[in-house]
Amino acid sequence: MRPPGSPPASQPHGERHNVAHRIALRLDAPQRSLSSARNSNRGVAPVPADPVLVEVRRGDHVESRHRGAAVVTDAAGRLVFAVGDVARLVFPRSAIKLIQALPLVESGAADALGLSTADLALAGASHNGEPRHVAGAAAMLARVGRDETCLVCGAQWPQREDDRGRLHIEGRTPTRLHNNCSGKHAGFVCFAVHAGIDPAGYGAVDHPVQRTIAAAIEDVVGVSLADTPRGRDGCSIPTWALPLDGLARGFARLGSGTGLAPTRARAARRLIDAAIAEPFMVAGTGRFCTEMLTAAAGRVYVKTGAEGVFCAALPDLGLGLAVKIADGATRAAEVVTATLLAALLGRRDDPAFDRFLRPPIVDWNGATVGGVAAIDGLAADFAP
Amino acid sequence: MRPPGSPPASQPHGERHNVAHRIALRLDAPQRSLSSARNSNRGVAPVPADPVLVEVRRGDHVESRHRGAAVVTDAAGRLVFAVGDVARLVFPRSAIKLIQALPLVESGAADALGLSTADLALAGASHNGEPRHVAGAAAMLARVGRDETCLVCGAQWPQREDDRGRLHIEGRTPTRLHNNCSGKHAGFVCFAVHAGIDPAGYGAVDHPVQRTIAAAIEDVVGVSLADTPRGRDGCSIPTWALPLDGLARGFARLGSGTGLAPTRARAARRLIDAAIAEPFMVAGTGRFCTEMLTAAAGRVYVKTGAEGVFCAALPDLGLGLAVKIADGATRAAEVVTATLLAALLGRRDDPAFDRFLRPPIVDWNGATVGGVAAIDGLAADFAP
Repeated sequence: MRPPGSPPASQPHGERHNVAHRIALRLDAPQRSLSSARNSNRGVAPVPADPVLVEVRRGDHVESRHRGAAVVTDAAGRLVFAVGDVARLVFPRSAIKLIQALPLVESGAADALGLSTADLALAGASHNGEPRHVAGAAAMLARVGRDETCLVCGAQWPQREDDRGRLHIEGRTPTRLHNNCSGKHAGFVCFAVHAGIDPAGYGAVDHPVQRTIAAAIEDVVGVSLADTPRGRDGCSIPTWALPLDGLARGFARLGSGTGLAPTRARAARRLIDAAIAEPFMVAGTGRFCTEMLTAAAGRVYVKTGAEGVFCAALPDLGLGLAVKIADGATRAAEVVTATLLAALLGRRDDPAFDRFLRPPIVDWNGATVGGVAAIDGLAADFAP
Repeated sequence: MRPPGSPPASQPHGERHNVAHRIALRLDAPQRSLSSARNSNRGVAPVPADPVLVEVRRGDHVESRHRGAAVVTDAAGRLVFAVGDVARLVFPRSAIKLIQALPLVESGAADALGLSTADLALAGASHNGEPRHVAGAAAMLARVGRDETCLVCGAQWPQREDDRGRLHIEGRTPTRLHNNCSGKHAGFVCFAVHAGIDPAGYGAVDHPVQRTIAAAIEDVVGVSLADTPRGRDGCSIPTWALPLDGLARGFARLGSGTGLAPTRARAARRLIDAAIAEPFMVAGTGRFCTEMLTAAAGRVYVKTGAEGVFCAALPDLGLGLAVKIADGATRAAEVVTATLLAALLGRRDDPAFDRFLRPPIVDWNGATVGGVAAIDGLAADFAP
């Protein structure tokens, strides 16, 4: 119907003019053309838009677009790269599990309980609920004489079909150990018991475990949580909305130790080293975090959070990164994160990074019918 | 940390001023504030933004936002409601399965083969792969002496955990009959065999089946497909990018018959009546289309498509509706569609519609921690 490779007609993505009045005219145009429509656009707000960062193509046509914000800073908060509204308050969700695991190490619990490198990686994981993850969380709890009944995270089916299938075949249902956050929660319980704190109700915002974590967030990210919007995460513990640029600076600090007390800097480095040494435990088979930790060969710590969030640290560059896709899409957050990491690592043209930068969309027969990628210009000239 | 119910600080969603130069200033602001950052925003295009239509809240804080376009027209294309860029070309994906099923009825195949109302609903379905869907598609194929091996849609695991579990327990893997499109594909094969067309390769763009469907799309939507971007759908058949307002007009025509040849109008009405009579067959347990077809009590035909698309017909009002969420999110497309349908049906305050209008977000313990809803102003004063 149309010559292969020819640009689709009437597509706005060819427009790359960074001129505000052009935006205004184009935003206004469809509304003026609809002046005959009754009540149209009444009350529909032109909320300030982040730029498009990711395009989803089917054939040659852009089917969907993702907007968002991304920021790279050093430990002092100096902006190295920024796009979109990087001052916005973002629920980091699971992207700050590294911070949430700090008390486990800083308190001496990890050493006293003899936790392994894999255990420390699991304490900061959003895992698939694969057998090693489930067994690991159970073993952590056993070290303090507890079991899954003390976890508040709720039960969740494993991520992968074969792991779900095994449960079905065995006539079982998933437990809280299968929850993608079970390692983090097991870490909370280990910390509490070691510190002489009753772990009961450890998910409540005023429980000593969450208060200790809140103080660590305030210190690392450099914010007060007193007036910050708070929500409840999927695993039933508090999550606070934090400025995206503060998250980037926080991860620069975690990676470099700069600006952190020595005990905290050592704990952060140990947790980062654990994730790099045991990337499977951080996520699992086929997962972005596991594969990126591996591909970056020790130069990157990276962690996903729900609703399109990523945080990363690049210790040897002294930089931190934070991404939020406005609509919450993980597929977009992954390619933005990969694009920035590839630029920072000088691996934009490395074939090993291609699957992160341009993941295909396949049909049910496995044939490629499209793909997801950052817009051409994103970080094009960017090298730290 | 913050009094319950108090508005979060620094959140832009309070801004509701529909003034273009304000948009321009605000879009420009974050870029100027980042002038010290190296290479920031280079090449990042301010693609014209659709307005925010949907907010996703966690606690009192807006965690994610979805932009998009939505349009309601009559069969002549007169705009009744429109927001966003409604002229854009959108892959309708599965939202036009009703059009793709027209040849099955128009050709006389449905009658000659004795297809039931449930079969006709299934021919336009994106189903869960529940046992009734799977059996229904197999039975349709059996009527022309075929089986699943002739389908090109590929295999897909059923949508629901208990249906997947049954396959695991029985040591089976999913077949092409479990594919959410198997009813549509079975309809293609029934049409082809009845019409004396070899169904082999029926998914190819130049196969008589797809050429017949393409002609139906051109007629109903009122476009030429000759210069239209084309992609391959997840079930390996062609999908053409169509103007969103043309889709709305097309569904107004399908629902009312206005502007269609009598045979086509009767076929459309029969397929719509089949979906309304057998809503389970259109999608399945817990699915938006099935539940909305039921809740609307015969006044609405509605069908989802992948990547945030919905099409609907309101026959007694003579109207059609089309929605595209820019980022492709189904959760947002559902609440926009529900909000517009509730307004059109005068059921905005009907408790039976509340679950469509404000679906909750729950944690792994089942507790409500947030929700998805259209922005307050969307269709606020809208009554056709």
